[in-house]
Amino acid sequence: MRVNSSWRVLGVLALLGAPAAGAAPTFPDATASDPVALGWMTGSPPPADKQIRLEDGSYYRFPQLRWTFSHWREIFPTADIPRGTGPVAVLPRAERRDIDAIRFTVLDTSQEMTWRESLAANYTDGIVVLHRGRIVYERYFGAGAAERPHIAFSATKSYIGTMAATLIASGKLDPKAHVATYIPELKDGGFGDATVAQVLDMTTGIKFSEIYGDPNSDVPGYARAVGMFPRPAGYSGPVGVYAYLATVPKQGEHGAAFTYRSVNSDVAGWLVARASGVPLDRLLEETIWSRLGAEGDADMQVDANGTPLAAGGFNARLRDMARFGEMLRLNGRFNGQQVVPAAAVAEIRRGGDREAFAKAGYKTLPGWSYHDQWWFSNNAHGAFMARGVHGQAIYIDPKAEMVIARFASHPMAANANLDPTSLPAYAALGDYLLAHPR
Amino acid sequence: MRVNSSWRVLGVLALLGAPAAGAAPTFPDATASDPVALGWMTGSPPPADKQIRLEDGSYYRFPQLRWTFSHWREIFPTADIPRGTGPVAVLPRAERRDIDAIRFTVLDTSQEMTWRESLAANYTDGIVVLHRGRIVYERYFGAGAAERPHIAFSATKSYIGTMAATLIASGKLDPKAHVATYIPELKDGGFGDATVAQVLDMTTGIKFSEIYGDPNSDVPGYARAVGMFPRPAGYSGPVGVYAYLATVPKQGEHGAAFTYRSVNSDVAGWLVARASGVPLDRLLEETIWSRLGAEGDADMQVDANGTPLAAGGFNARLRDMARFGEMLRLNGRFNGQQVVPAAAVAEIRRGGDREAFAKAGYKTLPGWSYHDQWWFSNNAHGAFMARGVHGQAIYIDPKAEMVIARFASHPMAANANLDPTSLPAYAALGDYLLAHPR
Repeated sequence: MRVNSSWRVLGVLALLGAPAAGAAPTFPDATASDPVALGWMTGSPPPADKQIRLEDGSYYRFPQLRWTFSHWREIFPTADIPRGTGPVAVLPRAERRDIDAIRFTVLDTSQEMTWRESLAANYTDGIVVLHRGRIVYERYFGAGAAERPHIAFSATKSYIGTMAATLIASGKLDPKAHVATYIPELKDGGFGDATVAQVLDMTTGIKFSEIYGDPNSDVPGYARAVGMFPRPAGYSGPVGVYAYLATVPKQGEHGAAFTYRSVNSDVAGWLVARASGVPLDRLLEETIWSRLGAEGDADMQVDANGTPLAAGGFNARLRDMARFGEMLRLNGRFNGQQVVPAAAVAEIRRGGDREAFAKAGYKTLPGWSYHDQWWFSNNAHGAFMARGVHGQAIYIDPKAEMVIARFASHPMAANANLDPTSLPAYAALGDYLLAHPR
Repeated sequence: MRVNSSWRVLGVLALLGAPAAGAAPTFPDATASDPVALGWMTGSPPPADKQIRLEDGSYYRFPQLRWTFSHWREIFPTADIPRGTGPVAVLPRAERRDIDAIRFTVLDTSQEMTWRESLAANYTDGIVVLHRGRIVYERYFGAGAAERPHIAFSATKSYIGTMAATLIASGKLDPKAHVATYIPELKDGGFGDATVAQVLDMTTGIKFSEIYGDPNSDVPGYARAVGMFPRPAGYSGPVGVYAYLATVPKQGEHGAAFTYRSVNSDVAGWLVARASGVPLDRLLEETIWSRLGAEGDADMQVDANGTPLAAGGFNARLRDMARFGEMLRLNGRFNGQQVVPAAAVAEIRRGGDREAFAKAGYKTLPGWSYHDQWWFSNNAHGAFMARGVHGQAIYIDPKAEMVIARFASHPMAANANLDPTSLPAYAALGDYLLAHPR
């Protein structure tokens, strides 16, 4: 099927995180859009109709994006996040064939679905499930592969929030201080008198419209400034994340409501760099990545000035995403060391303000909250998540002692499109593992 | 001191390999241009006058390029060349303090210089010397670091030539066949009726002027097409390596003389991808990089179509460059296995046609020759080299059982500017190790 140009615009708008308005277009399914079967970018050179490029926008069309998400560094400049020289933190294998058949009801429907069916429904590129630290399930599809880093999009934000909580726990970052205390450049902008905590919880009152499908939103301008979208000839807007942030004005009051705006995460990234005195990519390496026993280096897309994209530029291997989640589940202790201070994890897992969150009106997330760049279900298992557009997820279920890491390349950016076949599947798996441990 | 704009143009022209015409401008020395001391790209963000960017050309100005060469992937899109999962091939250490004091005479002068002095004279970023497989010397300067990949520029070509020789040894690539046999797209261009061997030895008769300092040369157009130089607004030329190669016309006869033209290496890269049926980056991983016991992943800059830049886009850690050289010294056997067939190495080390080479008129390389994308000194030690602009080098001295790998960021691109303080230093070190083994 053809993907029309208005969808391409919608797609670009959607790069950053929240639900799309309007009726969903239909798309070829996971099998019909498999990037390996379709032969994208194979051959030297690939045939013209199998080429994927930044400049013509094909990198972010569907189904081409199913290739792009597993080849991000081949499209964009990236900074390496080295794994360090220590041994890999082994995740023992105890794979379970019974998981595929677990049944659940699709959200807000009477439709039943199996775990296995949900993977295709969600255009899953890879999924790994840890139960009590052991790999009980692991699958890859399409361009996904265990050794290949995949773009995490807004799941990046939860790494930033974890670093912020760490700096707060050590007293280097004051959650009550104004942004301008650390970033004088933002003193006269919309963020200047917001507190660090408001930025981390996305309750700032700023003018930044992140409504997908609205061509008048602020997202295209943002995407061009940071370099996720090519800048047209004659472009005269801000270049780079920091330059863009200074242009964001205030609107309303800080602290009144949760509103998902990715620019908060970019400010959070700037804050942790300033508070630590260490560039964001190096801080991530030093405080988290080099201590996780990761299998591979990670990387972050950088803007034209070399600034890592805190709102969504992180790429890593799937099992390493799971290690990060497992570290959070274990209160910061993983790979034989306290990676993140227990106090920082405790503060993160305190969760956010449900009333403030409810004002955002997420239909698929009733009763949820947002804190320190993490999403909290507030369900009976205390599950919380890192979430990125097109289906990137780390789902931590403390009661079931379960961590799920998933990469996907769903045609629709907003996770509202994936939640109905994901969240009840995750909950059902948590219940199942709790009831049927091995 | 100020670097004027004509030098910036000269610098870009010089990206690809050979001597610059005219008198050399003067530059701050290695200490005065140290990128760490100068604070390039430090701070979040760096101060405006410490920023390095692709779009404004600062990435390739001196002294900024001294930072860029160790941060290539932060500027350009790159394809990963994974090291694989095997153990690192340990290089035992037997460091020698006596090396620093070795004296030599600067080429074509009566000036004496010590080994240690030569490193600053050459704006060395890193240098490692293996003697009988042991590290006898290793130093890093400026932005250079053991763990940080550095751009290899045209030393990339020798990896391509080694893969080509491997395919020839296994019968998958016929050195006598015409280019068009493998690449029909080039049938009507200048390369079509050149043989594979002529491409590998750079004796093709094509119209491609690689004279540095000549603004009418073909190099700026090439650099824009492949993406090493930003394309201006309204650019309507070819995009990508392969598209550019098809535009190169014939001039003169194939096989008549050696002329250093980087486009031959791009054709060589295309040939090995076609002959093997494997994309260039994957072939490098499968046949060489994953078998070397490398310490780190390498990577290759890719063009806008995802094609790796065979003429100069390779980045790797210095000790891994030395491992590659050591493998060649040991006739292809390294890390407990035959990495490259002995027959392929034997063919490479046969060297090239001195008469054909002499016609190129390299003042610093009398009696040398070129074969399979390697440079042969034909001296008493049988030394041969991989060479890249601004001082990238792998120097293999079989008689002295010595391999030198060097990264540098000399202000002048052409190695003619570094050879006078490098080649006699390497020769002197080879003589010294032969006379004073330990």
